[in-house]
Amino acid sequence: MTDYSAFKVELSNSIAHVQINRPEKINAMNAAFWREIVEIFQWIDETDAVRVVVLSGAGKHFSSGIDLMLLASVASELGKDVGRNARLLRRKILQMQASFNAVDTCRKPVLAAIQGYCLGGAIDLIAACDMRYAAADAQFSIKEIDMGMAADVGTLQRLPRIIGDGILRELAYTGRAVGAEEARQIGLVNRTFDDTPSLLDGVFAIAGEIAAKSPIAVAGTKQMLSYMRDHRIDDGLEYIATWNAAMLQSSDLRVAMAASMSKQKPQFDD
Amino acid sequence: MTDYSAFKVELSNSIAHVQINRPEKINAMNAAFWREIVEIFQWIDETDAVRVVVLSGAGKHFSSGIDLMLLASVASELGKDVGRNARLLRRKILQMQASFNAVDTCRKPVLAAIQGYCLGGAIDLIAACDMRYAAADAQFSIKEIDMGMAADVGTLQRLPRIIGDGILRELAYTGRAVGAEEARQIGLVNRTFDDTPSLLDGVFAIAGEIAAKSPIAVAGTKQMLSYMRDHRIDDGLEYIATWNAAMLQSSDLRVAMAASMSKQKPQFDD
Amino acid sequence: MTDYSAFKVELSNSIAHVQINRPEKINAMNAAFWREIVEIFQWIDETDAVRVVVLSGAGKHFSSGIDLMLLASVASELGKDVGRNARLLRRKILQMQASFNAVDTCRKPVLAAIQGYCLGGAIDLIAACDMRYAAADAQFSIKEIDMGMAADVGTLQRLPRIIGDGILRELAYTGRAVGAEEARQIGLVNRTFDDTPSLLDGVFAIAGEIAAKSPIAVAGTKQMLSYMRDHRIDDGLEYIATWNAAMLQSSDLRVAMAASMSKQKPQFDD
Amino acid sequence: MTDYSAFKVELSNSIAHVQINRPEKINAMNAAFWREIVEIFQWIDETDAVRVVVLSGAGKHFSSGIDLMLLASVASELGKDVGRNARLLRRKILQMQASFNAVDTCRKPVLAAIQGYCLGGAIDLIAACDMRYAAADAQFSIKEIDMGMAADVGTLQRLPRIIGDGILRELAYTGRAVGAEEARQIGLVNRTFDDTPSLLDGVFAIAGEIAAKSPIAVAGTKQMLSYMRDHRIDDGLEYIATWNAAMLQSSDLRVAMAASMSKQKPQFDD
Amino acid sequence: MTDYSAFKVELSNSIAHVQINRPEKINAMNAAFWREIVEIFQWIDETDAVRVVVLSGAGKHFSSGIDLMLLASVASELGKDVGRNARLLRRKILQMQASFNAVDTCRKPVLAAIQGYCLGGAIDLIAACDMRYAAADAQFSIKEIDMGMAADVGTLQRLPRIIGDGILRELAYTGRAVGAEEARQIGLVNRTFDDTPSLLDGVFAIAGEIAAKSPIAVAGTKQMLSYMRDHRIDDGLEYIATWNAAMLQSSDLRVAMAASMSKQKPQFDD
Amino acid sequence: MTDYSAFKVELSNSIAHVQINRPEKINAMNAAFWREIVEIFQWIDETDAVRVVVLSGAGKHFSSGIDLMLLASVASELGKDVGRNARLLRRKILQMQASFNAVDTCRKPVLAAIQGYCLGGAIDLIAACDMRYAAADAQFSIKEIDMGMAADVGTLQRLPRIIGDGILRELAYTGRAVGAEEARQIGLVNRTFDDTPSLLDGVFAIAGEIAAKSPIAVAGTKQMLSYMRDHRIDDGLEYIATWNAAMLQSSDLRVAMAASMSKQKPQFDD
Repeated sequence: MTDYSAFKVELSNSIAHVQINRPEKINAMNAAFWREIVEIFQWIDETDAVRVVVLSGAGKHFSSGIDLMLLASVASELGKDVGRNARLLRRKILQMQASFNAVDTCRKPVLAAIQGYCLGGAIDLIAACDMRYAAADAQFSIKEIDMGMAADVGTLQRLPRIIGDGILRELAYTGRAVGAEEARQIGLVNRTFDDTPSLLDGVFAIAGEIAAKSPIAVAGTKQMLSYMRDHRIDDGLEYIATWNAAMLQSSDLRVAMAASMSKQKPQFDD
Repeated sequence: MTDYSAFKVELSNSIAHVQINRPEKINAMNAAFWREIVEIFQWIDETDAVRVVVLSGAGKHFSSGIDLMLLASVASELGKDVGRNARLLRRKILQMQASFNAVDTCRKPVLAAIQGYCLGGAIDLIAACDMRYAAADAQFSIKEIDMGMAADVGTLQRLPRIIGDGILRELAYTGRAVGAEEARQIGLVNRTFDDTPSLLDGVFAIAGEIAAKSPIAVAGTKQMLSYMRDHRIDDGLEYIATWNAAMLQSSDLRVAMAASMSKQKPQFDD
Repeated sequence: MTDYSAFKVELSNSIAHVQINRPEKINAMNAAFWREIVEIFQWIDETDAVRVVVLSGAGKHFSSGIDLMLLASVASELGKDVGRNARLLRRKILQMQASFNAVDTCRKPVLAAIQGYCLGGAIDLIAACDMRYAAADAQFSIKEIDMGMAADVGTLQRLPRIIGDGILRELAYTGRAVGAEEARQIGLVNRTFDDTPSLLDGVFAIAGEIAAKSPIAVAGTKQMLSYMRDHRIDDGLEYIATWNAAMLQSSDLRVAMAASMSKQKPQFDD
Repeated sequence: MTDYSAFKVELSNSIAHVQINRPEKINAMNAAFWREIVEIFQWIDETDAVRVVVLSGAGKHFSSGIDLMLLASVASELGKDVGRNARLLRRKILQMQASFNAVDTCRKPVLAAIQGYCLGGAIDLIAACDMRYAAADAQFSIKEIDMGMAADVGTLQRLPRIIGDGILRELAYTGRAVGAEEARQIGLVNRTFDDTPSLLDGVFAIAGEIAAKSPIAVAGTKQMLSYMRDHRIDDGLEYIATWNAAMLQSSDLRVAMAASMSKQKPQFDD
Repeated sequence: MTDYSAFKVELSNSIAHVQINRPEKINAMNAAFWREIVEIFQWIDETDAVRVVVLSGAGKHFSSGIDLMLLASVASELGKDVGRNARLLRRKILQMQASFNAVDTCRKPVLAAIQGYCLGGAIDLIAACDMRYAAADAQFSIKEIDMGMAADVGTLQRLPRIIGDGILRELAYTGRAVGAEEARQIGLVNRTFDDTPSLLDGVFAIAGEIAAKSPIAVAGTKQMLSYMRDHRIDDGLEYIATWNAAMLQSSDLRVAMAASMSKQKPQFDD
Repeated sequence: MTDYSAFKVELSNSIAHVQINRPEKINAMNAAFWREIVEIFQWIDETDAVRVVVLSGAGKHFSSGIDLMLLASVASELGKDVGRNARLLRRKILQMQASFNAVDTCRKPVLAAIQGYCLGGAIDLIAACDMRYAAADAQFSIKEIDMGMAADVGTLQRLPRIIGDGILRELAYTGRAVGAEEARQIGLVNRTFDDTPSLLDGVFAIAGEIAAKSPIAVAGTKQMLSYMRDHRIDDGLEYIATWNAAMLQSSDLRVAMAASMSKQKPQFDD
């Protein structure tokens, strides 16, 4: 595996474990973080041997969000002309968004395992994952409002497809902290666990189940679910018909059928 | 009523009861099923005397999903050229989707009453209904993932408008079974009942309430709610304004008003 | 403050309190109501000194919905030609929708505080607000179905973005009453309070928190969340990048940063 | 070939010739017309031996549009309640639209050959075709405006994708006649011919060229071009990538390549 | 008629003639212009006696675009904070856009008659009209590029639906002048006339024809054509079906039919 | 400038000249071409000193389209499982599309100068440019149909926004050759020139004009025109209002105004 400065990445049993690895900085998202996450998820996307991803944070907390040093460095690039500053800022924001788009558009399911702080940019990040699971001590906050800005790398764009509009607005306008149990009730996380070890055990168990399914079927399912966040039902139906026109010719259907008849666990190629 | 081989259909008190009627096959969806359901819902759509529909399954289970014999028969039609196979498969899938579209676009509300197994294609079916109610023993599973394929007749397209994205992805990637109570908590069903008889009693009671309302008002309401799954708020507002430009000239408003003043139950024409 | 006949409007601590003020008529929405609400929310939109809005109803109830006298007056304008009647009705409906659009598109967050009856048109109204909070005695009903018509000023258009499709259809087809606690469970309201005084205390406390945030950040957040009800994720990301290209050049970020470092409460200009 | 009362249908050299065949009534569109056109185009859609379609009118004129007897018969079904009449009319219009949708969604290219009158409903019809060619005596008019109604079976929906907005509005508001040459200049027809025989020769020649291409490639091309009338460029790119994921595995590419190298005309299977 | 400072408005024979009336300033668009145009088109929209509109400019030129004094006055309102300036500018632009939206959404056809200069904001204005006609001396230029800005009140939004993308980009990037004949060839205007008097004669003749049609039919036609600039074909078909469900019950169809049989000119109510 | 194997790139007077440089292969698009074009246009996008781009082909022809060796190499990667082949092909197509998306989304205008052959993939390429200009000997053909496939890197997606639907379908189904003059008439190219030298002179003259405009204004104009290919008019209006909220604070407006008053050519910063 390549060496990363902000992450630790491991692959075993078809599961890639992507760990934000700056615990001494509460996993704050520095320049290396934004650059490396693209490389990692591109590698995951292209590597058929990876079937599912677990995303977690090293140490006591998932992440405190964007590194303030990074913000200061962008600010220092600004000049005198408001128009040219706007041009520069727009480009920077689009670039940072691209980092989390790489997580979102990755063709394998991504499961976020969250303990401790999950603040600001960290919410943007987990909103780009497929599913979210939390330890009992997890604490979520849309912190951008307290930095004098509207969140701009995904929270306000993706959370509306995940949790209800009424509660989302309260959280986005006030930045108030949400605990693990409330997070579960509003649908932000699927399940809570007593502590970090049992969280990781639980998430890896689910990841393992997914890794055992047909990767062709899983990829098609993710593609469709992501597609439906933004498209009409009739478009979705036509798209899956076109998609499955090829994919139903895969041998995975025969493998699944044979396994089902012989009451054995099917083995699918990558 | 016409004779159907996969269904039993009854009409009384303006309520059509459509029952999947192959209990000895756990109501598996065979070729007759897919053909007859279109005819039935076209009849419902065109028949003003039907005001609301209850959809249920005969026997211990709602339905185990698609009949594997049907899949095998499609497979046997495939030839050597991948492109022409794709053309054939695409057409078949669109055809099967059309069967459930007939349920979805039917102008009368459709209430699904679910007991026992509700697996694979059965989830696609209930996702095309207006509301879902379950007996305590109901068990839901997006089974397609275990057949090596992405669900392609509605589950992945319609469920995102019904339950939360996070939990839906977990269910679609893993195929794990969901019981009645969890189904209610995640919004898949509106209410649970102790057993099948009380389920049917409860659902018919709700159906009866709806059948007593103005059919003009109910049809407009369904049209709008279905429309809003895929359209913008401003488009929806303009559409209802155009719709009601005609419908507010109906006599049903006067009937409703008169009944309200005389404290009597209004009687609306079909 | 201007004098209104259907409302009472007060501004203090950057919070505008807009009160429907016809308690002797259960705050029924008469002609003055529909006209004045536009003026009030236009004033709010243009007045930088207003940072957040609380909308409530004077007396025991929030509102019983549209005033039947108003409906009768519209009916009396109808002539003989169905086409020209349709033209007139369409225009009237669009006009009434515009009244609630003014609430929806107002650039400041609007918090609805609801006690007692919240019926028919009142649901259309609260669906146009950002968040909803209820006293324990609140009672919600999509009453239009009992008037022989499909709701046409926002309920069927905006509620699908707020509560689940399955339960919404049940409520819209049957008009059944929903209490405060069920309203909270289905996401219609964010929180419930024991009685009206504690409801108002609670809502003003949340409003106060929001009023203390950067108005630039709050406005951007509202704009984005409203935008996402109807737009794609990629469009939303591009839009916020363009938006923040200007807004991140505001001094509010520096104010927020300085306050955060000095552990003091930031003071933002209007 | 089945017997039709309003059409004459022939198939030779993979080209289906569909002729409106009521010359004594200027090919006015009667009840049989609307019903039979659906059957014909469904047959074309499902029959792989048909690769391309020529649509023409027998006699001196293409068609004078809808048969007024049909309109009178619909009018006679109307009752007293405006709401229920609207329900009925909406259903009838949707049904007639479905007739021309069958032409539009047919998977084979449809070439219209037009001489003489092409009025009202006939414009709706040719707007649903892929390409239009005219004899010098052709005369086009959006006649609906003179019947006191807005065109409702396709002209106003499909022509905006075919000719410019400015000229279309003039034609739709005034109903003025357009000759063959002007039709060509504004893009309504691709080419003009001196008379009807040379028109048919020319159109069959183009049809023959298309019939000699890979039917897999032609179907994909039509699907994409129709899709792009209503979808975004990025959606179109993703869709064709999914489509060609299957279709590039067809043997037609190899056949085309081999023919190209041997300088021979390729022979593609249906 | 009300008195306007930037316009002269006359109504005769159901045709409203709206004339920009500041010939001594080349009809530059000052503050009064932007305010009054809204009032005028609201009046047109609501007044059934107006069936069609001719928009022209008094004097030798149609209009030189926005008045530079107005721009200077906006600039003088700007303060120090970039964010608050952006908030102010965005509001101003939306307000100016609303002025031309009033032209666009007006329910009656608007015909622009253009002579001499048609520059900058004047292009934005004519792009919001239904049709455009020009005198031989007309000269068009997307002048905003030479003011250091992207056109923001409609040219870049509406012209892409009117003229081809390739030529539009050339004109928008370079600002080069286009004469009447080229304007006709690229579809910007429908027809050219030798001089201003014959232009006005010609345009009023077309307006007269439209004014003689059923206003119900004309309004429906405009609504649909405007709708189709932004909506899918299937949505358009459904919308017209709903629209005509009411409008086909109008007496205008019978009036048209009777006139057609008696070979007389039909007389429609306003 | 970096060294490229398939291109020659020069920058002078703010104009980047990007030349396809494999004249001995009729500028066929090989693997290096698809990779390098991304790098080149990313560099252009990020380099403020480049204000406009001219894209041309070295030698007698613009380009003969995709290199058949590249197709053969992709074919050789295919394995036995249809599903996994589809997965691979889909990824390859998306990758190739990304090469031309880099041209399309580049923030500077791109002018294509076309002589001789412009076939297959070359049409896909010029469809991603802003404007197209041709020498008299240019010859265009949507060649993919003769390769047994539907064009999948942009032609079918972008040309519908550039030329009329009727003629496009004819060209796409038949692959027939189109000369320079017909290309101009149908709007595929803006202008024709007698020969290649005068073509380049003419195109560089237009490029020079654009390079002299405010780059802030040009970038905003391109952004909006590209946006409008896929978005609604109301969305476009809101977007430009947000965009210009920042950009109107640029000094370029003052520079333009000052130059206009002093009758001098303005000088804008990059």
